[in-house]
Amino acid sequence: MVAPQLPHRVTDGFDGLYGLEVTDFEDGVVRARVEVRDELKQPAGLVHGGVYCAAAESLASMATYLAVQADGLTAMGLSNHTSFVRPILAGTIHAEARRRHRGRTTWLWEVDFSDDDGRLCATSRVTIAVRQPPAAG
Amino acid sequence: MVAPQLPHRVTDGFDGLYGLEVTDFEDGVVRARVEVRDELKQPAGLVHGGVYCAAAESLASMATYLAVQADGLTAMGLSNHTSFVRPILAGTIHAEARRRHRGRTTWLWEVDFSDDDGRLCATSRVTIAVRQPPAAG
Amino acid sequence: MVAPQLPHRVTDGFDGLYGLEVTDFEDGVVRARVEVRDELKQPAGLVHGGVYCAAAESLASMATYLAVQADGLTAMGLSNHTSFVRPILAGTIHAEARRRHRGRTTWLWEVDFSDDDGRLCATSRVTIAVRQPPAAG
Amino acid sequence: MVAPQLPHRVTDGFDGLYGLEVTDFEDGVVRARVEVRDELKQPAGLVHGGVYCAAAESLASMATYLAVQADGLTAMGLSNHTSFVRPILAGTIHAEARRRHRGRTTWLWEVDFSDDDGRLCATSRVTIAVRQPPAAG
Repeated sequence: MVAPQLPHRVTDGFDGLYGLEVTDFEDGVVRARVEVRDELKQPAGLVHGGVYCAAAESLASMATYLAVQADGLTAMGLSNHTSFVRPILAGTIHAEARRRHRGRTTWLWEVDFSDDDGRLCATSRVTIAVRQPPAAG
Repeated sequence: MVAPQLPHRVTDGFDGLYGLEVTDFEDGVVRARVEVRDELKQPAGLVHGGVYCAAAESLASMATYLAVQADGLTAMGLSNHTSFVRPILAGTIHAEARRRHRGRTTWLWEVDFSDDDGRLCATSRVTIAVRQPPAAG
Repeated sequence: MVAPQLPHRVTDGFDGLYGLEVTDFEDGVVRARVEVRDELKQPAGLVHGGVYCAAAESLASMATYLAVQADGLTAMGLSNHTSFVRPILAGTIHAEARRRHRGRTTWLWEVDFSDDDGRLCATSRVTIAVRQPPAAG
Repeated sequence: MVAPQLPHRVTDGFDGLYGLEVTDFEDGVVRARVEVRDELKQPAGLVHGGVYCAAAESLASMATYLAVQADGLTAMGLSNHTSFVRPILAGTIHAEARRRHRGRTTWLWEVDFSDDDGRLCATSRVTIAVRQPPAAG
């Protein structure tokens, strides 16, 4: 994995399935967006909470991995705590991940999600483990 | 929404997109499964953390909603904290949601995820708000 | 409870026991400090994680309560998620609570803790429920 | 640190300050209690949320440490997420910590708190890092 050309619409795997598009990528800050469509909703017509969780997990993991791989290390999600404060029904989900801590074995990220009016809709705390890759890897 | 005929493969929205199938539904306990496929993975080939988060969110929300709607109330996710302890690469993700608290305004669920060998792979704590529906609803 | 004269060293209850001192109090931001002493430590000589949790809980609850009591409402902690990123062994624990969301029924706070060198040592997400007080109250 | 004679009232540090008494200690399960007194309360007269957090942190850390120290490893709290579901005003806080995962680098515990009537009052998820001790240690 190398740092993507931006904006980068992920086409593979789960990020491709729900539609993650990375728009900015700096050291310690990553921004992305997801276009709302019916396939991302829960039965009441709101964006499903799992979409925010997934995007937060991806941004934090990806940014940690891209930073530590040069040292032969790998990154793996330890926990994801997402709080939902305002529903989104249409438009675009805007995500901004900010690194809060860069430890030897653990990185901590806060990921904020806002709607097209810039209102906070969800916020995630994602803890990423930095580890030696499996011996066979 | 009524209690589903079981097993119930969700066909709409985000639950349909990633493939949630509800297999058991009792008061306070819900079980479900998700078949692993490439579209549910992250770049390293493991099931994406967001899949666990999404399934936990759905089971807790659905079970709370089905229980409180008879009283004219609605249910909405407040927070989802998922810890990842072992990756899944293939087979089926097995989910079991258990209600830990049934309050007047807040329900608390623990959702465990295991692989085909019965090993714990992730666990979520999901907090659901129980509220009066919006006036217009 | 009224907004305290600052700096305010709490003398009663648990906040008095561990030694919370509120130093700044604005709408949406509260700052406080706790002096490290042996009675606040765990067996390895570090400040006990519970001290950070307790201070975060107090700042978020207190600030929410002072804001909503004029409307006859009360505030009560729903959850406290504290991540520990760097130990403190001596000196002063500096806390800053910032409100992230001010909803009708739920307020969300982030509380950062730093040491005397300004390094992030712990961070808490605290969710406070805003409710009608019990009928008899 | 060795496994304590039980029941064991901690006399030092923060656990001594708020009054932790360990009553049972098996592999993967630890039980303890804390006697409620005015010094453990918040301004509204309920047991302060930080007391539950602190006890959860101690039980999970202590049990992990006692298990891994024979291998020359140390244990350190990574995160503590405590949900509050019912207040306690008097009597005894009963805690039961159960290990949910025992990984090479991370252990996961759930700690339930109940009142004298056996009702769930709070529940914590505590993540403990297992690490090589600092070189100089």
